[in-house]
Amino acid sequence: MRPWPVNGVAFGGDYNPEQWPRSVWPEDMELMRRAGVSFVTLGVFSWSWLEPAKGEYEFGWLDEIMDLLDANGIAVDLATATATPPPWFSTAFPQTLPVDHDGHTLWPGSRQAWCPSDETYREHALALTGALASRYHEHPALAMWHVSNEYACHNLPCYCDTCAAAFRRWLRRRYATLDELNEAWGTAFWSQRYTDWEQILPPRRTTSFANPTQQLDFSRFGSDTLLDFYQAEKQVISERSPGVPITTNFMTMAGFRLLDYHQWASHQDVVSTDHYLVDTLPDQRAELAFADDLTRGLAGGQPWMLMEHSTSAVNWQPVNHAKWPGQTIRDSLAHVARGADTLGFFQWRASQSGSEKFHSGLVPHAGADSDRFREVCELGAVAARLGELVGSVVESDVALLWDYQAGWAASGPAMPSSQLEYADTGLTIHRLLRERGVTVDVVHPGADLTAYRVVVVPTLYLVSDENAAAISRAAEAGAQVVVTFFSGIATPDDHVRLGGYPGAFSELLGVRVEEFFPLMPDETVALEHGGAGRLWSEDLREQGAEVLDRYASGPLTGRAALTRRTVGAGDAWYLATLPDDERLGRLLDDVLAAGDVHAVSAAPAGVDRVRRRGDRGSWLFLVNDTTSQQPVNADGYDLVADRLVVGSLTLPPGGVAVIREG
Amino acid sequence: MRPWPVNGVAFGGDYNPEQWPRSVWPEDMELMRRAGVSFVTLGVFSWSWLEPAKGEYEFGWLDEIMDLLDANGIAVDLATATATPPPWFSTAFPQTLPVDHDGHTLWPGSRQAWCPSDETYREHALALTGALASRYHEHPALAMWHVSNEYACHNLPCYCDTCAAAFRRWLRRRYATLDELNEAWGTAFWSQRYTDWEQILPPRRTTSFANPTQQLDFSRFGSDTLLDFYQAEKQVISERSPGVPITTNFMTMAGFRLLDYHQWASHQDVVSTDHYLVDTLPDQRAELAFADDLTRGLAGGQPWMLMEHSTSAVNWQPVNHAKWPGQTIRDSLAHVARGADTLGFFQWRASQSGSEKFHSGLVPHAGADSDRFREVCELGAVAARLGELVGSVVESDVALLWDYQAGWAASGPAMPSSQLEYADTGLTIHRLLRERGVTVDVVHPGADLTAYRVVVVPTLYLVSDENAAAISRAAEAGAQVVVTFFSGIATPDDHVRLGGYPGAFSELLGVRVEEFFPLMPDETVALEHGGAGRLWSEDLREQGAEVLDRYASGPLTGRAALTRRTVGAGDAWYLATLPDDERLGRLLDDVLAAGDVHAVSAAPAGVDRVRRRGDRGSWLFLVNDTTSQQPVNADGYDLVADRLVVGSLTLPPGGVAVIREG
Amino acid sequence: MRPWPVNGVAFGGDYNPEQWPRSVWPEDMELMRRAGVSFVTLGVFSWSWLEPAKGEYEFGWLDEIMDLLDANGIAVDLATATATPPPWFSTAFPQTLPVDHDGHTLWPGSRQAWCPSDETYREHALALTGALASRYHEHPALAMWHVSNEYACHNLPCYCDTCAAAFRRWLRRRYATLDELNEAWGTAFWSQRYTDWEQILPPRRTTSFANPTQQLDFSRFGSDTLLDFYQAEKQVISERSPGVPITTNFMTMAGFRLLDYHQWASHQDVVSTDHYLVDTLPDQRAELAFADDLTRGLAGGQPWMLMEHSTSAVNWQPVNHAKWPGQTIRDSLAHVARGADTLGFFQWRASQSGSEKFHSGLVPHAGADSDRFREVCELGAVAARLGELVGSVVESDVALLWDYQAGWAASGPAMPSSQLEYADTGLTIHRLLRERGVTVDVVHPGADLTAYRVVVVPTLYLVSDENAAAISRAAEAGAQVVVTFFSGIATPDDHVRLGGYPGAFSELLGVRVEEFFPLMPDETVALEHGGAGRLWSEDLREQGAEVLDRYASGPLTGRAALTRRTVGAGDAWYLATLPDDERLGRLLDDVLAAGDVHAVSAAPAGVDRVRRRGDRGSWLFLVNDTTSQQPVNADGYDLVADRLVVGSLTLPPGGVAVIREG
Repeated sequence: MRPWPVNGVAFGGDYNPEQWPRSVWPEDMELMRRAGVSFVTLGVFSWSWLEPAKGEYEFGWLDEIMDLLDANGIAVDLATATATPPPWFSTAFPQTLPVDHDGHTLWPGSRQAWCPSDETYREHALALTGALASRYHEHPALAMWHVSNEYACHNLPCYCDTCAAAFRRWLRRRYATLDELNEAWGTAFWSQRYTDWEQILPPRRTTSFANPTQQLDFSRFGSDTLLDFYQAEKQVISERSPGVPITTNFMTMAGFRLLDYHQWASHQDVVSTDHYLVDTLPDQRAELAFADDLTRGLAGGQPWMLMEHSTSAVNWQPVNHAKWPGQTIRDSLAHVARGADTLGFFQWRASQSGSEKFHSGLVPHAGADSDRFREVCELGAVAARLGELVGSVVESDVALLWDYQAGWAASGPAMPSSQLEYADTGLTIHRLLRERGVTVDVVHPGADLTAYRVVVVPTLYLVSDENAAAISRAAEAGAQVVVTFFSGIATPDDHVRLGGYPGAFSELLGVRVEEFFPLMPDETVALEHGGAGRLWSEDLREQGAEVLDRYASGPLTGRAALTRRTVGAGDAWYLATLPDDERLGRLLDDVLAAGDVHAVSAAPAGVDRVRRRGDRGSWLFLVNDTTSQQPVNADGYDLVADRLVVGSLTLPPGGVAVIREG
Repeated sequence: MRPWPVNGVAFGGDYNPEQWPRSVWPEDMELMRRAGVSFVTLGVFSWSWLEPAKGEYEFGWLDEIMDLLDANGIAVDLATATATPPPWFSTAFPQTLPVDHDGHTLWPGSRQAWCPSDETYREHALALTGALASRYHEHPALAMWHVSNEYACHNLPCYCDTCAAAFRRWLRRRYATLDELNEAWGTAFWSQRYTDWEQILPPRRTTSFANPTQQLDFSRFGSDTLLDFYQAEKQVISERSPGVPITTNFMTMAGFRLLDYHQWASHQDVVSTDHYLVDTLPDQRAELAFADDLTRGLAGGQPWMLMEHSTSAVNWQPVNHAKWPGQTIRDSLAHVARGADTLGFFQWRASQSGSEKFHSGLVPHAGADSDRFREVCELGAVAARLGELVGSVVESDVALLWDYQAGWAASGPAMPSSQLEYADTGLTIHRLLRERGVTVDVVHPGADLTAYRVVVVPTLYLVSDENAAAISRAAEAGAQVVVTFFSGIATPDDHVRLGGYPGAFSELLGVRVEEFFPLMPDETVALEHGGAGRLWSEDLREQGAEVLDRYASGPLTGRAALTRRTVGAGDAWYLATLPDDERLGRLLDDVLAAGDVHAVSAAPAGVDRVRRRGDRGSWLFLVNDTTSQQPVNADGYDLVADRLVVGSLTLPPGGVAVIREG
Repeated sequence: MRPWPVNGVAFGGDYNPEQWPRSVWPEDMELMRRAGVSFVTLGVFSWSWLEPAKGEYEFGWLDEIMDLLDANGIAVDLATATATPPPWFSTAFPQTLPVDHDGHTLWPGSRQAWCPSDETYREHALALTGALASRYHEHPALAMWHVSNEYACHNLPCYCDTCAAAFRRWLRRRYATLDELNEAWGTAFWSQRYTDWEQILPPRRTTSFANPTQQLDFSRFGSDTLLDFYQAEKQVISERSPGVPITTNFMTMAGFRLLDYHQWASHQDVVSTDHYLVDTLPDQRAELAFADDLTRGLAGGQPWMLMEHSTSAVNWQPVNHAKWPGQTIRDSLAHVARGADTLGFFQWRASQSGSEKFHSGLVPHAGADSDRFREVCELGAVAARLGELVGSVVESDVALLWDYQAGWAASGPAMPSSQLEYADTGLTIHRLLRERGVTVDVVHPGADLTAYRVVVVPTLYLVSDENAAAISRAAEAGAQVVVTFFSGIATPDDHVRLGGYPGAFSELLGVRVEEFFPLMPDETVALEHGGAGRLWSEDLREQGAEVLDRYASGPLTGRAALTRRTVGAGDAWYLATLPDDERLGRLLDDVLAAGDVHAVSAAPAGVDRVRRRGDRGSWLFLVNDTTSQQPVNADGYDLVADRLVVGSLTLPPGGVAVIREG
């Protein structure tokens, strides 16, 4: 099913006409047409305008704007409007307010102030969803359903009594008996043995560290609870509006990990996500690429929708930079390069009031007579020309494993080092591979790995026996498998695998680690073959592995830091520390050479390269992430510049080329 | 009405005799006379001693001390004692305890633990006030009434249910209809549309950013609520004690902005304030001058009372420095220079126990046989000699605008930059003008600006149409108007003015800004004519303005950073960034030259200069803020050294001269 | 009474067999024998396994393991298991959960979630204790009773209503009348005068600083409440199990000061403590030595038990370093050097799950085939050889005063400097003395000081008249008494002693301080005789004291910084600032010379030296805390290397020798 009945890459964004007087609406239509907008998302936060009192619906304004959009040829992604209830609801049902870890009620006056387990909320939300689906399922503008908004942001986790009861129900489904739960949670420690289900609570504020498996299960419960809510909304819609695709917008930025999207993805008719650049990251473009490669992994390698990104500045960072001239286009095309077939923005017009009034819009406060809006129009024209590549897929020989549940467990209390942030090692390796022109698929450990020549396993702290075995089989079958420290340590119950680290991968890697020696924030340990490791080191004893490098300082001097073991037709590499970029890069070069993996194309440093391939040919994306012009080799037709390229072209600073090859 | 029936600058402070055995009182009188103390503030925290049980008053000790003070010729500023209720009150009426943003009750055991909206508290406070006024209105020692203490510190804002109800009542007075409120608050965003007044809450802890106009109105409500309380106390007093001046002590330090003192000032018979130096500030003497110039602005240019400052160290900072030898005198005279006709200290004797026992007093723990007390006596003698200048006013040609409400709005959630602190830009410009020997009046945007040659408008984020027009008229009439970035952006409802920044001042300045580019904490942007900007930059397009300087680095290279437009008889200057001191100083030199504004007198760097002028002549204050001696030109009689000065004098390190001129 | 009926230094640790399947138990016995384990602590967190429902005991597993241990010759320190109640208890009696300063309930799911004042908790705990004592008092494996665990960690302070009522009862015992309390607390300040006991509350979250004496009394109340609880448990045991020694494990690390262990110590049949190295300390070995010297002081100079330390890494620090090879042995012997006759570890096997699974154990995750376990076995062998010195005592000529109550008062709100941490100055002086080879006894100010040649009084902010007099008498009698700034300031009610600082010691020292000038974190003040002071300075006037050094910068230039006064047969030294190590070291050299105190033995820098002496001779401990080998002079038999030493030996990096002398 193709989600968007539009030509070219669908282009548009969140449209909140209820924020503006009706006199503005005709101008909106004129400017949307000028910009080439082909779709809008309507109604995300409109509940209080659609249902101003219980059961009393006001659909008139929505009818009007739907008709207006249809008349202007703009498709509608219609939201269920259930992301935030109206004030009357919270006033009538105060028990639906979420409660934080310390027991503080989270009051209305912002957004998404509802307990994910609450049945009253669910009833009201489903009623509204049903009313919308019944009313608009045949509207000619309707192209898609948009369920709620950015689930889990900001009402998860909730620690209220309703959630406590729901958590207990969830646990009774997970564990056949209390004995099983006591064993899984390790309640023999600290006198926590449960003798009745009713004794179990969410991991609220405690005197000291809360039970880590309780916390892990509570994270699972939170994700499952909202997924169940999503599925209920989806069912209401699909009964009333069959054939119209349904999605909810994920948040696949590396720093947002409240939901296990690998469990959510299969319930989406099309995977969609939001992406916002974070200025405080050391390399925000690397994070963008990682998030996109993860989103594509969630979509099973198929194209996906970018539901929201920003035209220019956001307003929720400590300091909110506007985008440089041309950056709106560059950022959008960088997403298309990695599989986005839709370019959605939050939001059409920058608000005049409210909490996001300093968030940029396609139409800025300065109005249409502005460079930013002119750039938006230019992007719309480019998006239209990209229609030919819609449906094509991104080529990649490298998989990097990502598991939200491993991340939850690794973020538990009282770990060897609080410096170890689950995403960091994976982001580092991904960044270095991208700098080498190598495209990476970010996939779940349980994904089919047979087609990959290189499989990277970064800090996969928790892993099931099955997935560990599949990773080993990939090496046996010929892949280069690269495992980093703090992988394979724990079972899915967060029990340490005994007998020497890294438990599940010890045999594959031919190493046995007796103790961890995590490093202080500014501490490094020298390596014999140059460079240094940071973050982590280990007392490693090789048991069949070849030593590639050793520590040259510190208490582990002379112990192995980097190893490789030949396994069947492949190799298993182990990083017991996190080398600096130069040393790690050299190792990755060796891995790529061993795996016969090559760059998408040759290009200067700072030029991102990705190839999409479809039935109708292939397209090479060249994105200049530097602030100077860059010469690159290319042959074909550049859909951005709308001209033929023979042999080479020069990318301007921040410029992008999309070359139809052959 | 002259508030103090004493000769010279009134000199004294808070006196808490109930903390000490009666045997100490005669020594107090002896030492007060020795120091030249002419007034004391009595009873600020005496409620639990005046009314140990509901309705049972114990005035005996107060009678005694009032008589004793009268017998020693010391005037009394009698407090209503309503700043902190006794334990019996809080125990009997626990609902009167304030509640913080997270819902935590603030318990008794400190000070001011009462909800500002509570009627029970008000009744009891007014009863005590009435009893005191009835008893003492004819006491010969009574010179003034001191209502409560440092209002809003520390019981504002309070988020309890009583305040929620009071907030709703306040909103019903502000907005004729819910539709009006919904429009003002922009509730179309995030589904916040209210359909019943009862749905509205204080901006308690929420999931994400609370509605900014709700927060702004809640700040207004808090200030209004306490002002109403103050007025009720004042009325009780004025009915029973007519003709005795009434005040409450403000806290006009730049960092304390919980109350809109511009609304409070007109209800004071005489404006009084407290001032404490903050050691962690980069230039604490500049802040002292700013706070004094603001206090004088609140007093409409007239002299004011310094109700509290400290003899030496305070005890609420992370590290509490004692004052250097001589600093007590210097600090006090610096206040007199800028309009203080009263020098009050907290407190007479340093406490032996309790939460402020390490706060310095006029009599230190070491006793009267100490250098600090000898310096206090010296100050008392100087204060007596300053009697001739009482009532004179400070000369100034420069206004700098300050608006508590603009500050509240600019401190709202999710702004372009959290680095922008409302007071900082104003403090920076004020400091540079002071270093140039130029005295500044800090006044409200609605003040009469016609007499000023220079008007500085720093980060006036929120401004009404009327005030914006008055500022433009000042330029038309000949003033040099200096506007900085992030001014004129929003209406009083915190709605962004559309069509290009800086909305309300765009036409006056002849500029149009399309986007903000705020800078990271350590980020700077080079300027063509030397130096660099920090904190802020903007994508500015001149529309009639002359460009004075341009960015020479970053994404805005070549865009205008500093501009000027001639407007009628004056000029309108715009700073789109905050230049470093040297570059900003050069610009201010140009502004002063254009406005024909000159230094009060010539003096070396680090010597503060202010002139007070009255019916009986003029007095030049010269304050040496450096740690070395400084030669200055002066002619007249130095009231500090008590000797004639001809042509010049040398100020010792930290020394002060007050020259009667002519 | 010798607590441990084992040969050699008792060696073992916490054993939690209920965490492991019974199949592991025989291996445990085999490995314990291999390692030389002579005792284990059983049942610390076993309540939920011993009493799975109210009054239903399951002792079978404990019978079994007790018998197994007995069969293997391993003595048992049997815990009362009352440290953490089972979930059924907290569910049935939710009012027993502790409440924090902000009013947040601390929920179960971690450990020690019980209100220290709760009677219901006490009843249930005493019932369990009684059942255990009745059942096991004649068991042949039973060697000791271990009451609860690490009292006060983490359930003190608790601010619930039960504690409020208990606090009031405690206050009624402390103060005869409310007037007495009002006087002690200084309630004349800030209107806090109490007129009924029921008005009094714990120092919960307040608007500003809470009353400091209220806070001090609340700390006293907390310590007393848990001591009372301990005594109740002890009585239940001693009635049922007479003759078996009873203890509870203290936490004498310098950073843990919730209990006044000086009041607790006399109620222990043998003093025991836990010690964990803190990686973020500047000198963790100095802290270890300090904590041990304090523990010995609590034990009245007699040997004590190290109930817990760690084999390698802990898991509650931000980054948890493993110990270097050999460090387990070094750390253990360093404790023996300073009086430990028992070496207990937490815990036998590293857990596989739960909150401490990454805390090291005697048997690591890697298993017995690991270097760490081999080092454990080596330590066990050494411990057995040390049997001859059991009961011997540590020699010392220097006392350093430590008072938990002075620490509480000095940590109160609104002090002159938040930079002054009670323990720091004492730790600094202790470290410099230890570097000089001088052993220090850390004792209470009320201890018998007559035998000491040097008495150090660091920041003894609060001191009673009696103890101040005893310190003066020590000087009169010939001791060198070294007092530092911020000593003698307050009475036990935290009232400032008037007339000049340092109040209680002013006369002894011959100085009078008029004001404090605490220094900013990075601020220093030069000294005339080289070096600089930090943290603190004072406006000091000598009154009979000889000036040893003066400030050479800052506002106090020329004032005395270091002084000495000859008093009777001794001297009284005063430090008005904290000199850098070099300068302070020079001063301490002078003090030691004046006191005729010499190093235990000569040794290179970084080699710790302590001598224990008993009826059967003396033993010199030499601990190499450096990472290089160190030659030292020694004659005798080295119990570690198990060989004769003649004249000298070379300590390897981190190596230890225990020389039987003569």
